[in-house]
Amino acid sequence: MNITVPTLLLDQEKCRRNIHKMAAKADQNNVKLRPHFKTHQSWQVGEWFREAGVDRITVSSLRMAEYFASHGWTDIMVAFPANILEMERINRLAATIKLHLVAVNSETIEALAQGLLHPVYTWLKIDTGYHRTGILPTDHGHISLTLESIKQSVNLYFSGFLAHDGHTYKQTEKAAVQAIHNTTVSALQELQTKYKPHFPDLKLSLGDTPSCSMLDDLSGVDEIRPGNYVFYDLTQQHIGSCTFDEIAVCMACPVVAIHPERNEIILYGGSVHFSKDVLPQADGSLCFGRIVELTESGWTAPKEGIMLVSLSQEHGIVKASDAELAKYKIGDLLYVLPVHSCLTADAMRGYTTLEGEQLEHLSGLLK
Amino acid sequence: MNITVPTLLLDQEKCRRNIHKMAAKADQNNVKLRPHFKTHQSWQVGEWFREAGVDRITVSSLRMAEYFASHGWTDIMVAFPANILEMERINRLAATIKLHLVAVNSETIEALAQGLLHPVYTWLKIDTGYHRTGILPTDHGHISLTLESIKQSVNLYFSGFLAHDGHTYKQTEKAAVQAIHNTTVSALQELQTKYKPHFPDLKLSLGDTPSCSMLDDLSGVDEIRPGNYVFYDLTQQHIGSCTFDEIAVCMACPVVAIHPERNEIILYGGSVHFSKDVLPQADGSLCFGRIVELTESGWTAPKEGIMLVSLSQEHGIVKASDAELAKYKIGDLLYVLPVHSCLTADAMRGYTTLEGEQLEHLSGLLK
Repeated sequence: MNITVPTLLLDQEKCRRNIHKMAAKADQNNVKLRPHFKTHQSWQVGEWFREAGVDRITVSSLRMAEYFASHGWTDIMVAFPANILEMERINRLAATIKLHLVAVNSETIEALAQGLLHPVYTWLKIDTGYHRTGILPTDHGHISLTLESIKQSVNLYFSGFLAHDGHTYKQTEKAAVQAIHNTTVSALQELQTKYKPHFPDLKLSLGDTPSCSMLDDLSGVDEIRPGNYVFYDLTQQHIGSCTFDEIAVCMACPVVAIHPERNEIILYGGSVHFSKDVLPQADGSLCFGRIVELTESGWTAPKEGIMLVSLSQEHGIVKASDAELAKYKIGDLLYVLPVHSCLTADAMRGYTTLEGEQLEHLSGLLK
Repeated sequence: MNITVPTLLLDQEKCRRNIHKMAAKADQNNVKLRPHFKTHQSWQVGEWFREAGVDRITVSSLRMAEYFASHGWTDIMVAFPANILEMERINRLAATIKLHLVAVNSETIEALAQGLLHPVYTWLKIDTGYHRTGILPTDHGHISLTLESIKQSVNLYFSGFLAHDGHTYKQTEKAAVQAIHNTTVSALQELQTKYKPHFPDLKLSLGDTPSCSMLDDLSGVDEIRPGNYVFYDLTQQHIGSCTFDEIAVCMACPVVAIHPERNEIILYGGSVHFSKDVLPQADGSLCFGRIVELTESGWTAPKEGIMLVSLSQEHGIVKASDAELAKYKIGDLLYVLPVHSCLTADAMRGYTTLEGEQLEHLSGLLK
């Protein structure tokens, strides 16, 4: 492999292992797995999920739904509040695949009921504590009103209640993640009990990467939707979702300058490559990536005494101990585990496997 | 215009005004303008610079240099420490255009001297206080060593000393920016005096957007390289480089949810659209964008009582007063001035002018 510019490496073996592990866990728990594909956004990586038995997926935009539909996926949920301005796109997709949309209010339901030409599977998003969006589980007035609108619409089919526990990302203890998960499952189950008489088939959908990775018991819902686990990253390792060894992507960045007087290495690799997500350290310092070394079959665990500590648009600044600094020279490649693999993959727009194969990312295609 | 997804609007008139104002200022100061094109990365916007008399440009990568070379630019500086791993690309470019590279150490100079097949204009980057990279102006040993290597090389031509005062971005007072600028100019001039006997044609190149926008006297150097001023943004307005009225780009984002109980509007528009740069406010709160209203000929100044306060991957959260909240409904578009236009343009990969024309961004092309 001849790497000359910032490049996102993908360890296919680790990635496939992550994919199969979660599929096995879903099976054991007797829940359907509807993985979120926004992390990888690659039809090739998608095929590895198919090999693991996955037949339904989650995406975060209609464009992403179109992309994966064009690669043979026929059961796709867009897990973002339905954007009624894209009605044409919704109708085009709904004509050809089993399209699932998420509504967070009755206004959206009414607009969909008016504009839809084909059946759409509709989930109500419940705000179970993250407080980004969704209807509160106690707001039975709004929920009933919305379900009534769905019932009267020709093309809306009520699939069930959905939640996203984004607040698990702030945790670092399994017990805390478990507590959040239990609270959410019980809130969703209460709603299920209440509305099942009117919608006997209603399902429950849940599942962020921390809870799906850290918890053993994922029963009590019908499907789970983790996404980041395909690659994991330093944020997930910090939470406790994965080991360093399960992180399946790594940036290769050219060394363009070394400043021994302040123990700094300057990389070609900045916020347009990594994105700007940061992992604050216990001592208050900021981590934008951890440094590894390549091995014959992949890469090592992160090294001590060397860390990516700052990013500007194209520059990365690595702080290194004398011993680590001495190992690098200008023109070398330095390998960095990313803080947030979803955003890094989106910024890098493609992957290079350890075998040298180029894999596509939707954001690398023409708009 | 039928906007249905997050879209970056470009006010062509404002943008052209920004371009012409800086060109006139350079003329008055009798310095050459070599604008940095990394902010817009668009051949169409490049043409507006050409109309303003610009014939030399700055970029931040060899790929960007290739792009603008393919659009007729023949005098291009890559203002990033030369990446010796890209020697093939350097040689391809140097064969066809006047290519300027930046070196920050003698190792790079030696590698270039060995690998170059065509003449390259070489600038030494001096660290005048930003301390990201560059050679300290007092490090005459390293500078002399490097210049000696350049002199002995066949294909390296020494153009002069270059600096980037990135620390002006932390200022908000003209006097502070003036002090930084004066210090840098005087450091560069000392080097010029010292090395002019050996390199009679050596030039000085300087110039970030804050100093080039805020200061009247830009004399004392040979060329200036501001870039962000083509669009400006909230960061530059905060520094004092521009008025709100000079910000030439604005995001249009669909409203997908409204939460009156906590005065929040949820936008389709997150960190994959805006990037994650933030502008901390005086009261400690975080600003990810300010809200404007469209007018017949562009947009208003930012409104009070409403602000983009949080971004996740695809969601934006806007906090709004009761009065502002009451103005919006689901399916509306909300217009947001960005915190950092370079990163937002890079993430958005293209522009829509107020006249509805689509303009290209390099990052929207196939890799």
